[in-house]
Amino acid sequence: MTSYQLHPIGHVESPLKDRSAAPRQPDEGAPEAWIVLDERYLPALDGLRPGTDVLLLTWLHGADRTTLTVHPRGDTTRPPAGVFTTRAPDRPNPIGLHTVHLLTIDGPRLHVRHLEAVDGTPVLDLKPLLTPAR
Amino acid sequence: MTSYQLHPIGHVESPLKDRSAAPRQPDEGAPEAWIVLDERYLPALDGLRPGTDVLLLTWLHGADRTTLTVHPRGDTTRPPAGVFTTRAPDRPNPIGLHTVHLLTIDGPRLHVRHLEAVDGTPVLDLKPLLTPAR
Repeated sequence: MTSYQLHPIGHVESPLKDRSAAPRQPDEGAPEAWIVLDERYLPALDGLRPGTDVLLLTWLHGADRTTLTVHPRGDTTRPPAGVFTTRAPDRPNPIGLHTVHLLTIDGPRLHVRHLEAVDGTPVLDLKPLLTPAR
Repeated sequence: MTSYQLHPIGHVESPLKDRSAAPRQPDEGAPEAWIVLDERYLPALDGLRPGTDVLLLTWLHGADRTTLTVHPRGDTTRPPAGVFTTRAPDRPNPIGLHTVHLLTIDGPRLHVRHLEAVDGTPVLDLKPLLTPAR
């Protein structure tokens, strides 16, 4: 099957330095962080407003792409579940989805609250929040 | 900057045959469709249940990746907006995000309601629905 090439648009700057220290969910102590975009993408930010929530897509570059089942939350007393039923980073295409609150925008640097991605994580895209399913 | 390779896990089967016929939002007449996965990913579906909503990630393979601003909903009387403030498919990394309702699961074939992706769209990932931002 054809494969496709992702070109990161920037990266995450965060005090979280490695995956073992990263919280599993953003309400479990995720810190403030910066999304630092390449300057060539500045026009694509036009209209983005501080104080709003946006979806951030990242590439979880430390992931094991061969993993198909995981013990939920790493708890080996629970039966393994298919990775497509979990948010586990280890999966065939390790795209991270994060809802982040934009604190400030300084050119191509976006200061955000509650981001569970580690320092250096490649950034792929920003989108408005999803609307609920019907 | 390093780039990364996506390996599609399957594709969409849909009566929508081209992008010009696709609704802009799933509540604007998106049809039922099938998500057809490669059989090797069957273990990753373990625990997925019909009757639930899931997030589907696709690769919008017809997208123009050089586009940085768009007129919202194609309306040229409105000022252009940065693509990162829109859901427009034309963007640097054209990853599609869709909330779909699972009707039935038949091995690696998932029958879903309200999918606005065209026939043949590559499928990248499935995830549980996002929880709200805090």
